[in-house]
Amino acid sequence: MHSYRSHTCVDLTKANVGENVRLSGWVHRVRDHGGILFIDLRDHYGTTQVLCDPDSAAFAEVEKVRSEWCIRIDGEVKARDESLVNPKLPTGEIEVFVRDIEVLGAAKELPLMVFGDQEYPEETRLRYRYLDLRREQMQKNMVLRSDVVSSIRKRMWDLNFKEFQTPIITASSPEGARDFLVPSRLHPGKFYALPQAPQQFKQLLMVSGFDKYFQIAPCFRDEDPRADRSPTDFYQLDMEMSFVTQQDVFDTISPVLAGIFEEFGGGKKVDAPAEWPQISYADAALKYGSDKPDLRNPIEMQVVSEHFAGSGFAIFAKLLEQEGTEIRAIPAPTGGSRKFCDRMNAFAQKEGLPGMGYIFWRDKDGEMEAAGPLAKNIGPERTEAIRQQLGLGVGDAAFFLGGKPKSFEAVAGRARNVIGEELGLTDKDRFAFAWIVDFPIYEKDEETGKLDFEHNPFSMPQGGMEALEGDPLAVKGYQYDLACNGYELVSGAIRNHKPEIMFKAFELAGYGKEEVLKRFGGMVNAFQYGAPPHGGCAAGIDRIVMLLAEESNIREVILFPMNQRAEDLMMDAPSEPTPEQLMELNLRVIPQE
Amino acid sequence: MHSYRSHTCVDLTKANVGENVRLSGWVHRVRDHGGILFIDLRDHYGTTQVLCDPDSAAFAEVEKVRSEWCIRIDGEVKARDESLVNPKLPTGEIEVFVRDIEVLGAAKELPLMVFGDQEYPEETRLRYRYLDLRREQMQKNMVLRSDVVSSIRKRMWDLNFKEFQTPIITASSPEGARDFLVPSRLHPGKFYALPQAPQQFKQLLMVSGFDKYFQIAPCFRDEDPRADRSPTDFYQLDMEMSFVTQQDVFDTISPVLAGIFEEFGGGKKVDAPAEWPQISYADAALKYGSDKPDLRNPIEMQVVSEHFAGSGFAIFAKLLEQEGTEIRAIPAPTGGSRKFCDRMNAFAQKEGLPGMGYIFWRDKDGEMEAAGPLAKNIGPERTEAIRQQLGLGVGDAAFFLGGKPKSFEAVAGRARNVIGEELGLTDKDRFAFAWIVDFPIYEKDEETGKLDFEHNPFSMPQGGMEALEGDPLAVKGYQYDLACNGYELVSGAIRNHKPEIMFKAFELAGYGKEEVLKRFGGMVNAFQYGAPPHGGCAAGIDRIVMLLAEESNIREVILFPMNQRAEDLMMDAPSEPTPEQLMELNLRVIPQE
Repeated sequence: MHSYRSHTCVDLTKANVGENVRLSGWVHRVRDHGGILFIDLRDHYGTTQVLCDPDSAAFAEVEKVRSEWCIRIDGEVKARDESLVNPKLPTGEIEVFVRDIEVLGAAKELPLMVFGDQEYPEETRLRYRYLDLRREQMQKNMVLRSDVVSSIRKRMWDLNFKEFQTPIITASSPEGARDFLVPSRLHPGKFYALPQAPQQFKQLLMVSGFDKYFQIAPCFRDEDPRADRSPTDFYQLDMEMSFVTQQDVFDTISPVLAGIFEEFGGGKKVDAPAEWPQISYADAALKYGSDKPDLRNPIEMQVVSEHFAGSGFAIFAKLLEQEGTEIRAIPAPTGGSRKFCDRMNAFAQKEGLPGMGYIFWRDKDGEMEAAGPLAKNIGPERTEAIRQQLGLGVGDAAFFLGGKPKSFEAVAGRARNVIGEELGLTDKDRFAFAWIVDFPIYEKDEETGKLDFEHNPFSMPQGGMEALEGDPLAVKGYQYDLACNGYELVSGAIRNHKPEIMFKAFELAGYGKEEVLKRFGGMVNAFQYGAPPHGGCAAGIDRIVMLLAEESNIREVILFPMNQRAEDLMMDAPSEPTPEQLMELNLRVIPQE
Repeated sequence: MHSYRSHTCVDLTKANVGENVRLSGWVHRVRDHGGILFIDLRDHYGTTQVLCDPDSAAFAEVEKVRSEWCIRIDGEVKARDESLVNPKLPTGEIEVFVRDIEVLGAAKELPLMVFGDQEYPEETRLRYRYLDLRREQMQKNMVLRSDVVSSIRKRMWDLNFKEFQTPIITASSPEGARDFLVPSRLHPGKFYALPQAPQQFKQLLMVSGFDKYFQIAPCFRDEDPRADRSPTDFYQLDMEMSFVTQQDVFDTISPVLAGIFEEFGGGKKVDAPAEWPQISYADAALKYGSDKPDLRNPIEMQVVSEHFAGSGFAIFAKLLEQEGTEIRAIPAPTGGSRKFCDRMNAFAQKEGLPGMGYIFWRDKDGEMEAAGPLAKNIGPERTEAIRQQLGLGVGDAAFFLGGKPKSFEAVAGRARNVIGEELGLTDKDRFAFAWIVDFPIYEKDEETGKLDFEHNPFSMPQGGMEALEGDPLAVKGYQYDLACNGYELVSGAIRNHKPEIMFKAFELAGYGKEEVLKRFGGMVNAFQYGAPPHGGCAAGIDRIVMLLAEESNIREVILFPMNQRAEDLMMDAPSEPTPEQLMELNLRVIPQE
């Protein structure tokens, strides 16, 4: 017989009754039932009930074991009494009578129980991550992550993409975030950097003639702590294709992602890629108050300025006299109660706005009545016109926000989320996707008046060089995001592969040719040797797994995460280097005051 | 029609004749045949001949293109004249008459030609890697690498292994090589390290209850330059299993590797895993003079001390009077000529030995005659005994080395290789594998007399605690390598998962408990909470691909390698940090004298 096991802890069924078997695993629970010891023996695959009574030669040894000891037992499989069968367990029909036991690894007193649902402080969980990971939910999350990544790979291979590993020790790639640096020992005073993303390398791969690239790529950013991101690194499905349009990228990656959500989404509805809307950045802001709208929520905001211009509601009427202002409505079907409307008004105030005007429609003796102060102020005709535009009726409400859109759009978007949630309009059993397109290339810093790149500087401007010679703020890029349930899942672009257009685009943002060559020299030089048109995208692996696992903290889907102070408590990182290490690197730590 | 292509450059055949098609790719070659321009248009998939005569409206534009410009052409597919069909090309039956052309990316003067076999200095190739990678052999090598890695993943999944990503920004793991350090911004004066291997993490995964782990893992070592390794990082297939014996690991990984060599080995014979011998470290040294023997070479060395003890060959006879000395023979079938024997003797001298005695057997008037000075010195009886022991005959030779084995073993191993090569005994069309087992746990430093770990400190000693209480130098570990064609392809062990045995093992090598906890605390702490027996191995991806691609320089199988000074010439790494970066990291570079 094998030294450790003839079966795993999920294998044994009635068919094995009478067999002498060997199992190894961890003591999940021990119970003493009238002198008989019952152990739930657990391994990665499942749990098997083993038991030992004082007649067994092994009894004295079995008595010693405690939770989370790792043991090997030999014994005979017996059928459970009909009344004791556990239909929830694959092994619920049997139990194993222990004849022999070997302690493979004893355990000290546990700082964290694996069995049960007790909550522990995050510091405890991370310091003893190897115990935390033994818990059922963590085993499930990590296997889910591994399976999702495998499935992505298979799907990409099926589309003839090749996976290539790009360098991890490389040059600084100033893409907005802060680099992690790696001092060079052979070149004193010089540093490598860990890549923030394989952006330049994947574009270089296209220039090298590789047609379809992908990688499950580690990305490194030295960012300040935030609950929903890892402070050091994250993984993305990075992909790039040559000789493609924006639509080609959509047609390629959409089925991959839809397939993943179908495979691992636990039966929730997944919108078919053909139905994923393409929403312009401007429309997304207007209708959803967000460039990553949650389309499970059917609410779409509308411009209703005309109904308030010159109306009796002086605040809005006056507002509209200023240039660039608008009134927008958030329709709230089934939200037609004063209580609900007041709560939403309070929400807007908490978010820093003066409040949110509303109208709601109710039944008054068999007639529809528009209620709320706003309705009174603008009168029945305007109120009715609004109702008709928004398609609302008895029992519904609408909320109104006014001003320059930038000043209230984000709050409007959050109000839309809350309204959708509270009214139960948001379909929780669905993954709803939308491509957000036509991002502006530039934005203007309100204070300095200076132009800067809105997203990233590598996207091809729609209209090419000609467009750049017009109003820069009107230039849109072949640049896109994929939103899913309110999260940005994917970001990508058709790249600017023409050196002259790239230099021009940078020039508008105030970067001279030399600066561009210094920052992106590897890539820009390459573009001068026959660069193909190309584009691609990157999808956040951690985010996808979080959505599928229904977890809201990224550390629940990472094996050995850092804490929020970017420390690994288990491995004791970061730590003091030895003086020899610093000397070899030619570095001195500046003493702290 | 699609903006860039209706077909790739490998797609078109006779079946497409008459179609109007669109192709995009690079100008591989342009030829002018009597005013007609022929272009070999190349993409990742293949090459298509396109042509343009002065009747075409596109002629003037086509005339401008040069090698490596990226272009899009429209045209009509025509059948080639029977006499011009190129059966070597998938598209060899057709050509495309150009009607329209668009330059997608022009190219400056090329520092490196993609077409043809011209050799360029490595610095040029690495600086313009995106051009170098366009060459056919490089495209093939990179696709091979990608396909090998994919196939490994599929094979591991089929065996129910899960791939898990372990941290890249982590703690120093002193495993013999030098760490790359990463300064922490949030913790001034502290540093992370890049992992030399995921050794501790994979063992922690086993303690966490994950049963079968693998990873195509990047490993980082700040090593001094050497031709056959990357100066910064390399990839390994890293795997680990719980509740296994050494034989289980062999039975698991052998078919995976054999499968890879069969799939990508170009038809060379691959020894079946069931036939892979298990050779002890001691036997490998004796028979092959190496712990990574090339078994394509049938030569096995033998101890022949008895025939020289007290013989007339004074050098060996005297040598054997010293303790610990031996005489070993390298049989050389078909090597029986003075010329060959003298050449091998010269080889040994070049390797720093006084020389290599030899005997060879020739035909003298129908009788076998043993020739060479050695034969004369020891006389016919001893010479014949040697011949019989080695199983040699007319036309064969044998070489002899003597002394303490350590002093000549390595040279003997190299001589065995050269003999095998020169005599054509080494089967070049074969991948020959052998597990090397029973490595000693400790070695003694000849100078200091101090014990140290021979390989790595994580292996379980055969015989456990009891063995450690005897003669440490006699203790073997459950530790193994896989040799293939003279290379070490895999290294692994059954791990020492028992804290008390681990502390004892370290104590013998002079490391106290505190030191062990400091260096390997993450793992050793974990072992105190119910550690399972576990083991695994790691296989070098770069090495495997080099063997399959028949390349001898690792940079031929890496996309964007560093040069031997650990510089990336294309991306300009490493480079000077900005003063702000250094300030944020709280570091100062020590000025060079």
